[in-house]
Amino acid sequence: MEIAEIELKGHIIDSDILNKVFDTIIDLNGDFDVKEFKIGKHKKDPSYARILIMAETKEVLEDILTAVHDLGAVVPEIYDAVWEEAIGDKIVPGGFYTTTNHPTFVRINKQWVAVENIGMDCLIIIEGDRAICKPIDEIKRGDRVLVGRTGIKVVPPPRPREKNPFFGFMTNQVSSERPNLSSAKKIAQEIIKIKKDKGGKITIVGGPAIVHTGASDSLAWMIENGFVDLLLAGNALAVHDIEKNLYGTSLGMDIATGEPTIGGNKNHIYTISEIIKAGSIKNAVEKGILKKGIFYECIVKDIPFILAGSIRDDGPLPDTITDTMVAKKMMREKLKYSDMVIMISTMLHSIAVGNMLPSFVETVIIDINPLAITKLVDRGSAQAVGIVADIGSFLPLLVSELKELTDGRVREG
Amino acid sequence: MEIAEIELKGHIIDSDILNKVFDTIIDLNGDFDVKEFKIGKHKKDPSYARILIMAETKEVLEDILTAVHDLGAVVPEIYDAVWEEAIGDKIVPGGFYTTTNHPTFVRINKQWVAVENIGMDCLIIIEGDRAICKPIDEIKRGDRVLVGRTGIKVVPPPRPREKNPFFGFMTNQVSSERPNLSSAKKIAQEIIKIKKDKGGKITIVGGPAIVHTGASDSLAWMIENGFVDLLLAGNALAVHDIEKNLYGTSLGMDIATGEPTIGGNKNHIYTISEIIKAGSIKNAVEKGILKKGIFYECIVKDIPFILAGSIRDDGPLPDTITDTMVAKKMMREKLKYSDMVIMISTMLHSIAVGNMLPSFVETVIIDINPLAITKLVDRGSAQAVGIVADIGSFLPLLVSELKELTDGRVREG
Amino acid sequence: MEIAEIELKGHIIDSDILNKVFDTIIDLNGDFDVKEFKIGKHKKDPSYARILIMAETKEVLEDILTAVHDLGAVVPEIYDAVWEEAIGDKIVPGGFYTTTNHPTFVRINKQWVAVENIGMDCLIIIEGDRAICKPIDEIKRGDRVLVGRTGIKVVPPPRPREKNPFFGFMTNQVSSERPNLSSAKKIAQEIIKIKKDKGGKITIVGGPAIVHTGASDSLAWMIENGFVDLLLAGNALAVHDIEKNLYGTSLGMDIATGEPTIGGNKNHIYTISEIIKAGSIKNAVEKGILKKGIFYECIVKDIPFILAGSIRDDGPLPDTITDTMVAKKMMREKLKYSDMVIMISTMLHSIAVGNMLPSFVETVIIDINPLAITKLVDRGSAQAVGIVADIGSFLPLLVSELKELTDGRVREG
Amino acid sequence: MEIAEIELKGHIIDSDILNKVFDTIIDLNGDFDVKEFKIGKHKKDPSYARILIMAETKEVLEDILTAVHDLGAVVPEIYDAVWEEAIGDKIVPGGFYTTTNHPTFVRINKQWVAVENIGMDCLIIIEGDRAICKPIDEIKRGDRVLVGRTGIKVVPPPRPREKNPFFGFMTNQVSSERPNLSSAKKIAQEIIKIKKDKGGKITIVGGPAIVHTGASDSLAWMIENGFVDLLLAGNALAVHDIEKNLYGTSLGMDIATGEPTIGGNKNHIYTISEIIKAGSIKNAVEKGILKKGIFYECIVKDIPFILAGSIRDDGPLPDTITDTMVAKKMMREKLKYSDMVIMISTMLHSIAVGNMLPSFVETVIIDINPLAITKLVDRGSAQAVGIVADIGSFLPLLVSELKELTDGRVREG
Repeated sequence: MEIAEIELKGHIIDSDILNKVFDTIIDLNGDFDVKEFKIGKHKKDPSYARILIMAETKEVLEDILTAVHDLGAVVPEIYDAVWEEAIGDKIVPGGFYTTTNHPTFVRINKQWVAVENIGMDCLIIIEGDRAICKPIDEIKRGDRVLVGRTGIKVVPPPRPREKNPFFGFMTNQVSSERPNLSSAKKIAQEIIKIKKDKGGKITIVGGPAIVHTGASDSLAWMIENGFVDLLLAGNALAVHDIEKNLYGTSLGMDIATGEPTIGGNKNHIYTISEIIKAGSIKNAVEKGILKKGIFYECIVKDIPFILAGSIRDDGPLPDTITDTMVAKKMMREKLKYSDMVIMISTMLHSIAVGNMLPSFVETVIIDINPLAITKLVDRGSAQAVGIVADIGSFLPLLVSELKELTDGRVREG
Repeated sequence: MEIAEIELKGHIIDSDILNKVFDTIIDLNGDFDVKEFKIGKHKKDPSYARILIMAETKEVLEDILTAVHDLGAVVPEIYDAVWEEAIGDKIVPGGFYTTTNHPTFVRINKQWVAVENIGMDCLIIIEGDRAICKPIDEIKRGDRVLVGRTGIKVVPPPRPREKNPFFGFMTNQVSSERPNLSSAKKIAQEIIKIKKDKGGKITIVGGPAIVHTGASDSLAWMIENGFVDLLLAGNALAVHDIEKNLYGTSLGMDIATGEPTIGGNKNHIYTISEIIKAGSIKNAVEKGILKKGIFYECIVKDIPFILAGSIRDDGPLPDTITDTMVAKKMMREKLKYSDMVIMISTMLHSIAVGNMLPSFVETVIIDINPLAITKLVDRGSAQAVGIVADIGSFLPLLVSELKELTDGRVREG
Repeated sequence: MEIAEIELKGHIIDSDILNKVFDTIIDLNGDFDVKEFKIGKHKKDPSYARILIMAETKEVLEDILTAVHDLGAVVPEIYDAVWEEAIGDKIVPGGFYTTTNHPTFVRINKQWVAVENIGMDCLIIIEGDRAICKPIDEIKRGDRVLVGRTGIKVVPPPRPREKNPFFGFMTNQVSSERPNLSSAKKIAQEIIKIKKDKGGKITIVGGPAIVHTGASDSLAWMIENGFVDLLLAGNALAVHDIEKNLYGTSLGMDIATGEPTIGGNKNHIYTISEIIKAGSIKNAVEKGILKKGIFYECIVKDIPFILAGSIRDDGPLPDTITDTMVAKKMMREKLKYSDMVIMISTMLHSIAVGNMLPSFVETVIIDINPLAITKLVDRGSAQAVGIVADIGSFLPLLVSELKELTDGRVREG
Repeated sequence: MEIAEIELKGHIIDSDILNKVFDTIIDLNGDFDVKEFKIGKHKKDPSYARILIMAETKEVLEDILTAVHDLGAVVPEIYDAVWEEAIGDKIVPGGFYTTTNHPTFVRINKQWVAVENIGMDCLIIIEGDRAICKPIDEIKRGDRVLVGRTGIKVVPPPRPREKNPFFGFMTNQVSSERPNLSSAKKIAQEIIKIKKDKGGKITIVGGPAIVHTGASDSLAWMIENGFVDLLLAGNALAVHDIEKNLYGTSLGMDIATGEPTIGGNKNHIYTISEIIKAGSIKNAVEKGILKKGIFYECIVKDIPFILAGSIRDDGPLPDTITDTMVAKKMMREKLKYSDMVIMISTMLHSIAVGNMLPSFVETVIIDINPLAITKLVDRGSAQAVGIVADIGSFLPLLVSELKELTDGRVREG
C-alpha cells in the first residue's frame, strides 16, 4: 500500500474541487481518508482539507497525484521545481510537466513565481527567475523544461458565488432555444463593462461567414467605435471584406440581395490582384482604394490584425502570414493582453485560439453549428459561453444593444 | 416490344419537363423516338413534342407511362376517367391513382374538371361532376375512387422565366451562409405583395421555440398588424405564449433575461390551470386574464387558429384538439385558402402541412436545424424556400423590414 | 431578516448537492451560515450539514426553501404533508407542489410513504395512505392535491463513486467526435446486464428514420432476441416498417438501394389500406400477410407496443391511438416498469417520454441531430446519455456487439 | 439593340444546358429567338440549336455572352484566344478570363488545345502551344494571361442518361435519412470499379475525427489493401493516428473505451517529440517505433501523403508543410491524377481540394455536419455526393463492403 497526503485550500466546495478530487481518487482505483476538514462558515471564508491518499502500487499513486495536482491539490513539500534540458528543438525530456490553462506557480530558488503566458497543453521552461509557458513548437535545444510535479502549484479559478452578469447567465449547454436577444444584451453589457469600466482589451476571432451573412458592417462598426482591440482571422475574411467594399459582392454573390452576379466570381480575384498591386491593405487605404469595411476601420483606427494563412487561400494578400507556425506564435504573443475573446463562425481559428487562452479570459463563441461549439468545449475551453445563432441576424442585434447602452455617445466620440 | 405515344405541351423545356421525361424513360429501361418537336421561338410561346415510347414488356411500359404522366405528359385519348368503389372506410381499390401536388384535371362526362383541394399522395374521388382530392384517412366505403390513368391531366407549374423577387432569390440549397438580412427583406416584400396588392392569405405554422427564443412579440405584432390569416400550431406554443404573457416566463425561464426562475416551472402548470378555469383562450381574453401576446392578438383580431394535440402536451388547453385526425382534417380544410405559408421552427407541423399544400403555394421554412428543412424537401415540398436562422434573431429582423416597407402606416391602421 | 434552518444528509459532497445548495442560496440573494458539518471519512460514510439560511424578506426565504428542497434539503419538521381539493378537472389549487423526477416521499399520518409513479413537473395526490404522482391532465375534481412543502422529502440519486460502466463513460456533453464503436459496445454491455443479470425491462422509443436509414432489421433482431420489452412509436414507424416488409420500400424509396421506385409512393397508401382491411397489425400477421420486420416480431414475441397518433399520420393504422391524451396516459402506465429506455431518432417521442421518466431510469438517446439531444437535456432529462450518430450505421454496430457478447447463443434461445 | 448569335451542340436538353441558356438570357434582361433547332431523335444523337440573343446595351450583351459561354455556348468565330502579359507576380490584367471546373479548350495558332490542369476560379496562361490553368497564387510577372472570351470553348460534362451506379443513386440533396448501408455498398462498388477495372487513382482527404471516432483502423485497412493512392490531411490527423498507435489514445482519450486517461494529454506532445526525434514519420517506421496505423501503412505501401499546416497545429511533425501556399501547390500537383476523391470529416481540406478538382472527378464527402457538405456544394463542387454519417460507424461499414466485394482476396494480395 502506497500513501501520500495532500492539502486543498480555498473555495474548494464552491469550485467543485473537493468533489473532483474524491471522484478522481476513486476513478483511478485509489482510496482516501479525510484527515482534517474545515468549512468556511461564510461565503467569503476559504475551506481547508487534508486528505490521505492510498493506492495499491506506486504507479497508481503517481497517476492519482498527477490528476489531483491539476485540480489544485498541493503535496506539502518544500522543494524547488525540477527541470531537465531539452536535447533538441521540439524534443521534450521524459516526465515533462504539461500545463493546464489555469494560473500556475513554480517554486524557483525557494520563491513562488507566477508562470508567464499560461496556456493549455504546453510546457514550462525556466529562464533565470522566470517561469515561461511555451508550446512544444517553441522549445529550443538547451531549454530548461520542468519535469515531475514538485514545486508546481495550480490555482483553478473559483466559481464565482456572486452572480456574474456575463458568465452567470448561461450554462455550458449548447442550445438553440435560448432568447438570443437577451444574450446579445448581456454580451453588450459585458463588452461595455470591460472596455469602459476596466479599460480592458477585447479580441475578435472571425471567419468569412461574417461577410457572406451580411454581418460585416456590424463588425466594422464595432471596430470604428472602439470595441475591438485585436482581430484574428484568415486570408478569406480580409479578401471577402475588401471585395464587398470594392465591388459589393462576396465570392460573387451580391451581399445586398443575396443573388449571384454574372462574372462576379472575378471580383474575388480582382480584389486580391488590386491589393497585391497596392502592396498591402494599409497602402490600399492610404491610396484611397479601400474606403470602408472591417479592415479599413482596422487601418484607420490602428487596430492590429493577424491574418493566418490556410490551404484554402487564394492569393494570398500580402498581409497574410503563410507560415502557420509563424502566425501561431504571433497570435499567442498578441493574445496575452486580452480580457475577452469573441469567436465568430470559424471553427479553425476558434480552436486554435481557444487552446492559447488562460482559463480566466472570458470567451464567447457564436456559431450556427452547435457541433463547432461542442468541439471547442471538448478541447478544454470550458469557460466558453456558446451561442447558437446565425451571424447575419445576431451581430446587428449586438450592435444595436451596444448603441443603446452607450446612448449614441460612441458615434460622437 | 410494347409502344405508346405521348404528347407534351407548354413550357416543357423551361420547366425541365422534357428532360425529366427523357431521363425517366431511360431510367426505367425504356427507349424513345422523338416524332415531332416544335420549340416556342419566343419565351411566351409554348413548345410541343410528340414522343414514341418503347419498352420490352407491358409492365415496363405501364411504369413509364405512370411516371411521365406525373410529369404532365398526356396520352392522346378521349376517354373519361375510371373509378372503382371503396369496399370499406380507408380501404382503397387496387390500381388507385395517387395524386401529385400539382394542379390536376379529371375528365368526367367528357368535360375536364379541376380537382378540388389538391394535395400530395392522396386519392381522387368523384362526386357527381366534381373531382375531390382526399387523403386515405377520409375515404369512406362507397366512395368512387379514381383508378388507372385515363382521363387525368397533371399540369406542373412552369418555372417562371420572369424574375420572381421571392422564389427567384434562392436555390433549394439549404445553406447557413446567406445574408439573412436580405432574405428577411425579400420575405417582407413578398408578404406585402400578397397581402396588400393581391388581397391574399398568409398562414403561419409555428413551434414553441418562437417563445423560448424570445420571438413571440414579433409574431404577435404580425398578427396585430394584419399579416397573418391563419395560425397552425400545437398546444405548447399556446401554453408558452400565455405563460410568457401571464408570468414573464417560458417553461420557467425568464424570457427577458434567459435565466431560470425559482419555482418557475409551476408557471407552466398554472397557465394551463388558469385557461381551463376560464374555459378557453377566448374566455381568458374576454375576462381580462390574458392581455397580450400571440393568442391574445388572434382572439382580438379574430384570426382563426388550430391547436393540434401531441403526446408531449401538458393539460392540454381546452382549445387543443386532442384527436390528431380531427385536427388534421381541420387543418386541410382551413389551408385551402392560403397563398403563402411560413413555417417556423416546427418539424412536426411543417411536414404535416407541407404534405397538404399544392405546388403553387409559396412556402418559406425558417429553422436553425438544416436537417429539418432538408426533411421537408425530401418529402416533396420542393417549392419551399429554406432559411437556416435562429428565430430569436430573425423574426425581429423580418418585423423591422415589414415596418419599414409599410412606412409605419400599419401601426396607425 | 428572515431565517430558517435546513439539514442535508447523505453523499452531499459527492452528489454535488452541498455546492448547489450554497449556490442557490446566494443566487437567490440569501445568505447562509454553516452551523455544523461532518464529512464522511470514507467513501461509504454519509456526510451531514446543518445550515442557517438568512433572507431579507419572507418571499425570498420561501423561494430559497422551495429551491433547496428540490435539492434534497429537509426542514427539520414533524408535520404531515398538506393537501387541498381540486375544484375542477385539471384545475390546480394555488400553491400546489410540483414534482422533480427524483424519488420522493410524503408524510401521511406520521408515516413516510414513497410517491408512486414519480415523473417531472407533475402534481402529487393523496388517496388514503398512498401518494400518487399525476400530470395535470389526469387531475380530477375533488382530488387531494399536495400543496406547500411540509412533509415532503426529495432524494436525488447519488452520483455513483464506483465506476459505472454505462453512465460513467460519457459526460453529458453532446459531441460528434466520440468513438461510436466503443459507445455501441458499452450500451450492449449495459443491455446484457439489465436483461440477463437483473431481469430488467428495456423500452425502445423509435422514429421512422429507423426504417428510412435501413436500420429496421437491426431493431427487429433485437426484439426477436429478447432485448426489447416495450416499443413506443408513432403511426409512421409502423407504416414504414410494414411497407418495407410488404413491398421493399419506405415512402417509395427502395431500402436496399436507396433509390426511388416508380409508383412507389402508392406502397405507403396500399400498406395502410391492407392493414385496415386485415383489421389490425396482429390480424395481418395471423393471416400471413405480414411475415417479418419490427412489428411482426412484436406480435410474434408478444411485446407490447403503443402507436401514438400525430397530425403527420396517414390513415392511420387501426392500432394507432389518435387521441394524444389517451396515448400519453397509456405510455405513462406502461413505462412504469422500465429500467432502461433507448430513444432513437424521434424528437417528439423522446421529449414526451423523457418527461415521464424518473431520474433513476437509464436513458440513451441516439440521434444524428445534436440539437435533438440538447433539447431533451434542456427539458430536464439530464440523466440521458446522448450519442450523435446516424442510425443506419450505428444500430447494426450495436446488434453486432450484442451478438458477440451473447456468443451467438441468443439465436438458439 | 445589340445582337449576337450563339450555337449549342451536344446533349443540350439532356444536360439541362438549353434551359440554363434560356434562363440566363432572360435573367440578365436580354431576349432571344430560336433560329434553328434539331433534336436528336435517339438518346445517342446530339442536338443542335442556333439562337439569336438580343440586349438593350453592349454591356448587357457582354454579360449574357460571358454567362452562356460558361454553359458551353460558342460564338461561331474563327479567332485565336487573346492574352495579355501580367505586369507583376499575382497581378492580373483587366478583363482576364476566369475558369470553370469543366474541360476547356483554347485556340492557339488556329489549333484547339485542351487546357492542362483545369480547376475552378483560376486563370489560363499560354506557354508556347500549351494552355495551362493556374490559380492567381502562381501567376508570375510576364505570364501570358488569357483575356476576353474569343477562342475559348467550355465543355460541361453530359448528365449521363445511362444509369450510373455511383452518381445515379443520390441527388445533391443533403439528407440524414438515407440508408447509409446501401450508400456504403455503392461507394465500395465504385471504388472497386475504379481501382480494379480501370486502374484509376483514389485520393482520401481526411480530418482528425477519423481517429477520434475510432475509424482509423478502417482507413489503415484501405491503404494496406491498395484502395488509396494519395492521402491529403493536416498535421492533426498524423499526430492523432501516431499517438493512437504508440499509446492507444487520441488527445488523451482512450480510443478503445472512449474514456479520458490520466496524464493522457501528455501523449499528444510525446508523440510529436518522438517523431521529431526520429526525424520523420518514415524514419519512425524504419526504426521500428511506429508499427501500425494510417501513416505506417502509407510508408510501407509507399503511398504519398501531404500534411498541410494550420494554425491549430502542435509541433508540427517534420513532415508537415507549414507554408500553406507551398502545401497548396503540392496538393494541386498531386491531385492531377485522381479519378475519385473521398473527403472525410474535414471542412477546411474538403473546400480547399474541392476548388482544385475538375468537374469530371467523382467526389464523395462524408461528414456528420450537413452544413459542411452544403458549404462545399455552395462553393461550386456540385458534383459531390454528400453523405451525412458519423465516421466511426460508417467507415467500418464501407470496409466490410469492400471485403465482401473482393471476397477476401485483397488480404492475400
